[in-house]
Amino acid sequence: MSPPETTTAAKTYLDLVKACDNFPYIDLSRTPYAEEPETVLYQLLLPEDPRPHGYMLPSVVSRMPWTPSFSVSPPTSRPRTVQVLGSPDPASINAAFDTLIKAAAAAGVFSSLAPPLYDEAFRVLGARGSSPVRVLRASVALFGIASRGSHMTVYTRSPSTDELQIWVPRRAAHMRTWPGQLDTSVAGGIAAHESPFACIVHEADEEASLPRALVQRDARAVGAVTYVCASGAGSGGEHGLVVPDVLYCYDLEVAADVVLKPRDGEVQEFNLWSVAQVREALLRGEFKTNCASVMIDFFIRHGIVTPENEPDYLEILTRLHRPLPVPTSAAA
Amino acid sequence: MSPPETTTAAKTYLDLVKACDNFPYIDLSRTPYAEEPETVLYQLLLPEDPRPHGYMLPSVVSRMPWTPSFSVSPPTSRPRTVQVLGSPDPASINAAFDTLIKAAAAAGVFSSLAPPLYDEAFRVLGARGSSPVRVLRASVALFGIASRGSHMTVYTRSPSTDELQIWVPRRAAHMRTWPGQLDTSVAGGIAAHESPFACIVHEADEEASLPRALVQRDARAVGAVTYVCASGAGSGGEHGLVVPDVLYCYDLEVAADVVLKPRDGEVQEFNLWSVAQVREALLRGEFKTNCASVMIDFFIRHGIVTPENEPDYLEILTRLHRPLPVPTSAAA
Repeated sequence: MSPPETTTAAKTYLDLVKACDNFPYIDLSRTPYAEEPETVLYQLLLPEDPRPHGYMLPSVVSRMPWTPSFSVSPPTSRPRTVQVLGSPDPASINAAFDTLIKAAAAAGVFSSLAPPLYDEAFRVLGARGSSPVRVLRASVALFGIASRGSHMTVYTRSPSTDELQIWVPRRAAHMRTWPGQLDTSVAGGIAAHESPFACIVHEADEEASLPRALVQRDARAVGAVTYVCASGAGSGGEHGLVVPDVLYCYDLEVAADVVLKPRDGEVQEFNLWSVAQVREALLRGEFKTNCASVMIDFFIRHGIVTPENEPDYLEILTRLHRPLPVPTSAAA
Repeated sequence: MSPPETTTAAKTYLDLVKACDNFPYIDLSRTPYAEEPETVLYQLLLPEDPRPHGYMLPSVVSRMPWTPSFSVSPPTSRPRTVQVLGSPDPASINAAFDTLIKAAAAAGVFSSLAPPLYDEAFRVLGARGSSPVRVLRASVALFGIASRGSHMTVYTRSPSTDELQIWVPRRAAHMRTWPGQLDTSVAGGIAAHESPFACIVHEADEEASLPRALVQRDARAVGAVTYVCASGAGSGGEHGLVVPDVLYCYDLEVAADVVLKPRDGEVQEFNLWSVAQVREALLRGEFKTNCASVMIDFFIRHGIVTPENEPDYLEILTRLHRPLPVPTSAAA
């Protein structure tokens, strides 16, 4: 493989990883974000659980139409907290969030809650209880709660050259977020009731027309990319929100005669590209930000990016696996 | 695969990873370790480079026979620093360390520098200059400098069942560190002048009788495990030193007729074990601490440990890729 042309390659792999994991490296769980009152974050606390499950901007807290199920600390308190009141039973917590989010949507204060508001819920990672604590997907970033997604890289080997080739979709031009950008072969947010693997099986069917039996048999769990970003231009909605994110990663090697085809309208086309083609598109900045990180993780695991050819190897690796500022299991 | 017996499995994968990555999660580069004077660490600074390349215990600083090539700040200063003086040229820095370490060895103040003192040098990760800055391997932990190692997991697939089988060596009983413990198939420290890949190629030859041509053709770089440990009982020498460590990881799938054989006397035997056998040995605590982490990383990348069967999946993943408190590239 020839090295990327420095004249056309505007970015490095580390630039791409930093663009995804772009929230400052501060200890969110222990220290205020900053001493300026406008930027000291509020910790989101569930009943009978001292661990912060999210971090909210003061500008969001002040506009939220809080209900009696929530107690908001005075701005002078340290830490600042938003405490969910009542029973620690997930049903009670879920009802409190549902009522609040409906009120916020009705009041029209957040563009991310503008209609149409899809009835899809995300799980609060690490929350305790016998069933998931869940909040409406569109509201997760407002609360600074971690999101969960599943990303699967589908690849094949050229029958003639044995060269690795990767299936790369381009997002439809009408998508609200990241229109026209390149994406992971198959990817989607994980609904509250789902496991990461169940998610990738149905997304592969819906987005890429891949048979469920094939994916269930051959998809391999290979790790996860974790990062914290500040919501920005491409993501829609508010800017500067704390967005911790987990992308569970899967690899699927398919035979050369398997063809990925768009099905649900979110993808405009699938390209079967060589590693060199994918790398050039990455370095041109054509991938959706977090999909670039997933592809770089794939390149590392497959010996394409190595300690010998990448000076930032170690920083890339650690930033692809950032410790999250929220609990990731009920026990932690 | 059957789950481990809870009666015999004393440890979890997270326990094993925490035993390796066991230094407190504090921001070493920004905050003193603690406010107690005995525990405020000294930053090791190279000439014309403000980035700390190591963290030294006060008990080590006070016993080191410093030469005029080093300036040690008063105990009351914050941060406490050990500054290498003189030219930023690696040759000048290397000479300063050589003289100091020989003096410390002659004075007999550190058990890790007791004879026989092997003439093997490690690179100071991320140091600037046209050639490596290097210090004697036996002294790296005293300075809290990061170590580099290469670890390769060698595996095959049973011709009859297609089941994954892993080559697991047991360390010789006469080894100074971790005698009789299980190890990565092939592993070794990376000399200052070597690349991670060059290291694994010659270690595979010396430790496991694997032909260089085979390793050069088929070994695949797959990432790295990074951690910070406090030196303890198993490691020999001082206790409580800050030991940042990088283990570059390689996978090597071999044919069923390839047999690993001890050669240099550091390994007493190689076992070809099923995943279930390896897991049981891991959970019994039979692996050398950092080799357990490398094996768990292998289990994650190969879909053996998954988000569905491991509640601590995300915490394990992030702890296997800890951001290091020292620079990992010249640019950073």
